Amino acid sequence: MAQQLEGKRVAILATDGFEQAELLTPRDELRKAGAEVDIVSPKSGQIQGFDHLLPDKKVTVDRTLGEARASDYDALVLPGGTNNPDHLRIDEAALSFVRDFFDAGKPAGVICHAPWILINAGVAKGRTLTSFKTIRQDLKNAGATVVDQEVVVDNGLVTSRDPNDLPAFCAKLIEEIAEGRHAG
Amino acid sequence: MAQQLEGKRVAILATDGFEQAELLTPRDELRKAGAEVDIVSPKSGQIQGFDHLLPDKKVTVDRTLGEARASDYDALVLPGGTNNPDHLRIDEAALSFVRDFFDAGKPAGVICHAPWILINAGVAKGRTLTSFKTIRQDLKNAGATVVDQEVVVDNGLVTSRDPNDLPAFCAKLIEEIAEGRHAG
Repeated sequence: MAQQLEGKRVAILATDGFEQAELLTPRDELRKAGAEVDIVSPKSGQIQGFDHLLPDKKVTVDRTLGEARASDYDALVLPGGTNNPDHLRIDEAALSFVRDFFDAGKPAGVICHAPWILINAGVAKGRTLTSFKTIRQDLKNAGATVVDQEVVVDNGLVTSRDPNDLPAFCAKLIEEIAEGRHAG
Repeated sequence: MAQQLEGKRVAILATDGFEQAELLTPRDELRKAGAEVDIVSPKSGQIQGFDHLLPDKKVTVDRTLGEARASDYDALVLPGGTNNPDHLRIDEAALSFVRDFFDAGKPAGVICHAPWILINAGVAKGRTLTSFKTIRQDLKNAGATVVDQEVVVDNGLVTSRDPNDLPAFCAKLIEEIAEGRHAG
């Protein structure tokens, strides 16, 4: 069980303004389960985490989007925070990176405000998911079916609403990554 | 010219996380033009402004949404910031307040991320407007026509993209408020 994700590599894509629990908790849980986890970002150096409205911890970027490829990884995690996905959703390299995971049917864990990124990547339409409550109208308008549950799994796509859902989110994410690619 | 808005009352609706220049500059320019301006918020006391990602100045709330009515005002201003409209867009009292201005054909100035509020208030559809670049897909998906200009005026609705557009935004807003209600 402790090494359920042995040999699996996971990319967490984030930039300044990420909700820190939504990056740190999945990172730590995935590592405990045996996965190698990289923090991937448009920028090198450190990125600034937030505890809701206020800046708190920083994390070090392992690879920039210029250095990372989706084909290097088995799964993707997109943490929330308002400013982090607000920036990533118009970053063409970020959208291309995200699309490559979805095109390959690889598992993805997307929480809180991060489903905004799926809207701009063009991969939200037709999916069943949940999100932070404030962005649900945007997801519906993009053609997704939005439900209000602590965790939703739709063919490898694992979504949750906010940091309170992290235990359920991480458990389902580990299950989906252990299963591997989904046919789509 | 200095008293172009003599006798006009304007509500600026905001909460914690507003982009401070987008509240303070319209407030000051509208007052200079002779308007009475109230800061209206879901909460009483003070609300926290941000300079991009970091907290900066606070402003004092003049009236809560429980105390204010759209019928008391001639025009509405919605400043941006990511967290401010992210909160207001699911506050039913805020949405009802906003809708009352639009239903009455009163001028409204909406900048940056604030057009998100128009999506949830159900008043974005069919309008031509601009916004911060990150939320344009949401506005298109909600049925708005989105353009990329420093200021856009559509039948009393004045929109701009970001703090750099504030001079053009304030000038058009003052013009529209001086004209008064629009037939719709």
